[in-house]
Amino acid sequence: LGPPPFTSDKIYASATPPGVVMGLAWTAMGGSTLYIEAAAVERGEGKGSLRTTGQLGDVMKESAAIAHTYARRVLQARGDAAFFEQSALHVHVPAGATPKDGPSAGCAIATALLSLALARPVRPDLAMTGEVTLTGKVLPIGGVKEKTLAAKRSGVRHILFPEGNRRDWEELAEDVRAGLEVHFVEEYQQVFDLALPEEGSA
Amino acid sequence: LGPPPFTSDKIYASATPPGVVMGLAWTAMGGSTLYIEAAAVERGEGKGSLRTTGQLGDVMKESAAIAHTYARRVLQARGDAAFFEQSALHVHVPAGATPKDGPSAGCAIATALLSLALARPVRPDLAMTGEVTLTGKVLPIGGVKEKTLAAKRSGVRHILFPEGNRRDWEELAEDVRAGLEVHFVEEYQQVFDLALPEEGSA
Amino acid sequence: LGPPPFTSDKIYASATPPGVVMGLAWTAMGGSTLYIEAAAVERGEGKGSLRTTGQLGDVMKESAAIAHTYARRVLQARGDAAFFEQSALHVHVPAGATPKDGPSAGCAIATALLSLALARPVRPDLAMTGEVTLTGKVLPIGGVKEKTLAAKRSGVRHILFPEGNRRDWEELAEDVRAGLEVHFVEEYQQVFDLALPEEGSA
Repeated sequence: LGPPPFTSDKIYASATPPGVVMGLAWTAMGGSTLYIEAAAVERGEGKGSLRTTGQLGDVMKESAAIAHTYARRVLQARGDAAFFEQSALHVHVPAGATPKDGPSAGCAIATALLSLALARPVRPDLAMTGEVTLTGKVLPIGGVKEKTLAAKRSGVRHILFPEGNRRDWEELAEDVRAGLEVHFVEEYQQVFDLALPEEGSA
Repeated sequence: LGPPPFTSDKIYASATPPGVVMGLAWTAMGGSTLYIEAAAVERGEGKGSLRTTGQLGDVMKESAAIAHTYARRVLQARGDAAFFEQSALHVHVPAGATPKDGPSAGCAIATALLSLALARPVRPDLAMTGEVTLTGKVLPIGGVKEKTLAAKRSGVRHILFPEGNRRDWEELAEDVRAGLEVHFVEEYQQVFDLALPEEGSA
Repeated sequence: LGPPPFTSDKIYASATPPGVVMGLAWTAMGGSTLYIEAAAVERGEGKGSLRTTGQLGDVMKESAAIAHTYARRVLQARGDAAFFEQSALHVHVPAGATPKDGPSAGCAIATALLSLALARPVRPDLAMTGEVTLTGKVLPIGGVKEKTLAAKRSGVRHILFPEGNRRDWEELAEDVRAGLEVHFVEEYQQVFDLALPEEGSA
């Protein structure tokens, strides 16, 4: 009760458990990291559903619905139609009192859901941002500079941006980009390959 | 999070997968292409439903409901009553943070749903605009000039307009129309024949 | 009818029954203790649900949903998947006419639900505050000084704060902290170990 004194920066010291992804947010106050947390509530015939919390605005709620439909398709293509059909899922974005909105966490939400479904943690030291469409296209986002600075402050080494933001990145000053390895993606499959590599692969 | 810096122009490089159609929008800012993406969420007895995302206004949500009912009728006439009865469907219109409204994507939404149902991609290099009624009549739309310019910018060769917009088209300057092949339609069946031709036919 | 003449301080004389936890609130009027009361409404196949009362704002309602999902996970990890799946639960925060909001009762709500599920009363003389995330991370809260004073007024000996509030605590005057034993936690499991110790353990 009372206003939240802190953002959700640094909730997870280093590696994250399955279901958790580090995203990047951009507000009037600048950029910040944020975490997407996905959890399974229960499982059973016909229980497939998604609940969201974290004071998400309308666009971000829709973004979660799109990520849910798309992640289901990805898993179906891998031969598992049952997980999303039978799982009541819950996605939360701490901190709980901070209003959040926008479509740019789409890739991160899809990744959180797939990380949970596959029980496979996301590659450490990776932060991502990008809107995802219902067929897995990755659309550009705003706040490239602010998000880059936030990623650096949080200490990650890899940052994932939409291909459509390549020019924004290239226009950043050399010292802003220093120390970060950037990955540009056009299709969600590239996000998957980077964030949730198959066991035994790089 | 933060305002969307780009429209959804050019999400799909050339051909689109089944379920995706290029439409044309008209706003205070001018015309633009937009994509309608349809995906199947799950299938089962009594699961027939439609969910929409993409910050659609009331008119466009109704337009999707009309397209859904009408596409079901088209498929039933082809002997398949099961697909829409048993499929939970999701239609999204990127980009997710851009509010959209109006009835003019009706033909495109119906086509996206039928393309998905038939697992047949829409003819490449085609953009369409037109309101559809519950029985398949195609009604005229606004912004013919702006939509024509947007179609040209996007590089498509074929553009589909309602018959009721023929005069608007004919009043366009010659250089605006140059390079585009226009198709006027009165009935949705004509849209279907152009966008989703039977295999083995033109 | 009319404004509530009393806060909920001192509803429970000393020990609390299973399902009840003492939390700490912070308002424009200063700090106060508050109780989280959890009760089982009914039990049966597919009846798992959570209802909240107590004039809770949107953030606090979400906080209860998060606590519910997380407490379910804690109990599942202990081998009991049935309780939350089959129990219609009700969480109330007296007094009923006082509006309450914010995420800082998260740990207390999760603890109330787990105390109820395990039929085990919470350790007496303990008041707690802290936001909980969907994976059990404990996030810092506001109003450390006001909550500390409220805890002292209520006569508890132990107070539980998020690790992220350690500095706030250390900046309190010596006489404010006197008489209280403080516990800082980063993970909900530490809350559980303090509040609901295994029988036979400390």
